[in-house]
Amino acid sequence: MNKKEPRISGYRFSAAAAGIKRAGTDRLDLGLIVSDSPASAAAITTTNLMFAAPVEITRERLASGACRAILINSGNANAYTGEQGRRDALDLTGELAEGLGIGADLVVPMSTGVIGLRLPVDRIREKLPQLQQGLDQGTFMDVAAAMMTTDTRPKTVLLGGVSSDGPFKMLGMAKGSGMIAPNMATMLAVILTDIRIEPNRLRECLVEANSRTFNCLTIDGDTSTNDTVIVMAGGGSEARELGGGRADRDAFSSLLNEACMSLARQIVLDGEGATKMVEVRVTGAPGPGAAAKVARTIAESPLVKTAFHGEDPNWGRILCSAGRAGVVFDPYNVDLFIGEVPIVKQGQVVSDDWESAAHRVMQGREFSIQLDLKAGDDEASFLTTDMSEEYVTINADYRS
Amino acid sequence: MNKKEPRISGYRFSAAAAGIKRAGTDRLDLGLIVSDSPASAAAITTTNLMFAAPVEITRERLASGACRAILINSGNANAYTGEQGRRDALDLTGELAEGLGIGADLVVPMSTGVIGLRLPVDRIREKLPQLQQGLDQGTFMDVAAAMMTTDTRPKTVLLGGVSSDGPFKMLGMAKGSGMIAPNMATMLAVILTDIRIEPNRLRECLVEANSRTFNCLTIDGDTSTNDTVIVMAGGGSEARELGGGRADRDAFSSLLNEACMSLARQIVLDGEGATKMVEVRVTGAPGPGAAAKVARTIAESPLVKTAFHGEDPNWGRILCSAGRAGVVFDPYNVDLFIGEVPIVKQGQVVSDDWESAAHRVMQGREFSIQLDLKAGDDEASFLTTDMSEEYVTINADYRS
Repeated sequence: MNKKEPRISGYRFSAAAAGIKRAGTDRLDLGLIVSDSPASAAAITTTNLMFAAPVEITRERLASGACRAILINSGNANAYTGEQGRRDALDLTGELAEGLGIGADLVVPMSTGVIGLRLPVDRIREKLPQLQQGLDQGTFMDVAAAMMTTDTRPKTVLLGGVSSDGPFKMLGMAKGSGMIAPNMATMLAVILTDIRIEPNRLRECLVEANSRTFNCLTIDGDTSTNDTVIVMAGGGSEARELGGGRADRDAFSSLLNEACMSLARQIVLDGEGATKMVEVRVTGAPGPGAAAKVARTIAESPLVKTAFHGEDPNWGRILCSAGRAGVVFDPYNVDLFIGEVPIVKQGQVVSDDWESAAHRVMQGREFSIQLDLKAGDDEASFLTTDMSEEYVTINADYRS
Repeated sequence: MNKKEPRISGYRFSAAAAGIKRAGTDRLDLGLIVSDSPASAAAITTTNLMFAAPVEITRERLASGACRAILINSGNANAYTGEQGRRDALDLTGELAEGLGIGADLVVPMSTGVIGLRLPVDRIREKLPQLQQGLDQGTFMDVAAAMMTTDTRPKTVLLGGVSSDGPFKMLGMAKGSGMIAPNMATMLAVILTDIRIEPNRLRECLVEANSRTFNCLTIDGDTSTNDTVIVMAGGGSEARELGGGRADRDAFSSLLNEACMSLARQIVLDGEGATKMVEVRVTGAPGPGAAAKVARTIAESPLVKTAFHGEDPNWGRILCSAGRAGVVFDPYNVDLFIGEVPIVKQGQVVSDDWESAAHRVMQGREFSIQLDLKAGDDEASFLTTDMSEEYVTINADYRS
């Protein structure tokens, strides 16, 4: 174990270069996380109809709420690979389980990368012994690096909380870049905590945290073939136990929320060609889901996103997007702010010098816009990026 | 009348430079179309909640099914201008009607350009006499040019058909570029025909043609503040009469369809920064609307559109988009073609050398992709463009 790296007890890590991303290089593309004792676990996976083989296996295996190990590869998504893809993932996790001396059902696979190509099973198999041997030296930063695809940097977070049974830690790692929704870049996240919590409560907390964080990037129906968030709790034999009371539940939930939000923000900030992170906040929407619908329509509009890139306080594009979101409100009653700068108040463009002030806000690397529809109580936020020329260049590159 | 321009009888045209786009220049930005006698008319307007003042007036005035003149301006959308905007449009069309000696209800306004700025009413008013005087010399090409905003060229079409009462003509003009959906660039189109047809039949034919053409670019809910298609029929005292039979109806409908499709294609090909036009065709979808939903999701995906730009036959992105469209099908039973090249057959990537063949198809300026979901009978097409770096550059330009 690298002594300098902040650590979380109860889990071990290892990574290897299996040549999945590119044969013959030493880029890490295989990662392993092992819990020293049976942990409870929960997952949220893609809603895409084209879910990958590892997603299917994750769903099946985590239904029990127990997990010991996660085998992660980048470079190949094992998606749209049919029965063969499923067999490959079952074989590899099975062999790994045997090596670790645990049940195969306690190992889940996560994959990200190219769609429609069979996993290079032999190259991965060859590396399994090295992966296991590396568990004593590996760090979670290695695993975070091994899961990267177009990411320009690993994304990790380590947080500490306090329960009635004492302090506990939470470690998160994730990969994902891409322009986020409506994009399909895969998002993988693993969150580990050293406190025990019963699987059903864990799942509840994850669903809640996910809806407030990752789902504000890649919301239902807008996910890739492989998107997966897994949380494992209580690894290690000395793990404390989360109490059943409200305060403990809140302490755990808020830490999980914080870990997810940190990873979500790191993903957005690493968006392909992104130079800005923008929070689109919609309030006063009529009825449940309406605010998210409007926020998402604004956040996904290429015209709005290019205006963000141009640092152009083009409120017309923002309101026009809102107007086509399929939500009923009175356009002549709304308030719009860019940062703290009021642009439209009760449907009237403010007469002050809003333009240069708003432009200054948009010159920042992070800012928010807020639209109050004044048509109800629903509210939602959506994180997005600007859209730059570089985004197009990255994604138009011919693969081969 | 410019003798060299192909003409349609019964209508006169005029255009002027009113300095709406930019004061003091001679760029045409005001256009007038006058029917020599009362014509029947129908319109389809934006579904955006933020519809502009001219859209509201068009809806009201064309409810009667009669029209004599259309006053068009570019440079200012007269959108989000409230009661003032409505008064401005009513005043200007009223003064024009007086000048033409017709009822104000027979004049409709169309506007496109910047949102949220009051129309420069005085500058437009000043030009009304010149516009009217110009009716004897003007051409439809002048009006097509006057309606342009970010368009790089005017879009017109002139077609001839035959009815039981003899031959008839149809003339179309349109403006619109932008990346189309999910973009909000305004689309304005005017179609004129010299044959008489009763307003209700005219409206029916327009709804039908629109659903097959313009709606495949900017479908319901995805329209700008000002989108409008107006068709006028039977201008001029010598217009023939469309018979009530099936053959006449078909002759008219197919010509109107053809005119709309030609304008739609011209708009797509003039898309901001677009270098390719792609037809996304989806067949075998389960139930009404399902094919359009899938086609649209594919056609709007930035990842798919950038792959088009890179001439990359990235079928994974196409299928993954389809998988998140919210339509149920079996991904392992679909067929996918790029042009005539089969890529996926019954859920299996074909083993031949599809990649270079598909790449060659994509090197063309126009190509199609076809996805057969084999889950039903519904089918739909959606026209889209590639997404280039230039698209971002155009739209990120700071306005001022």
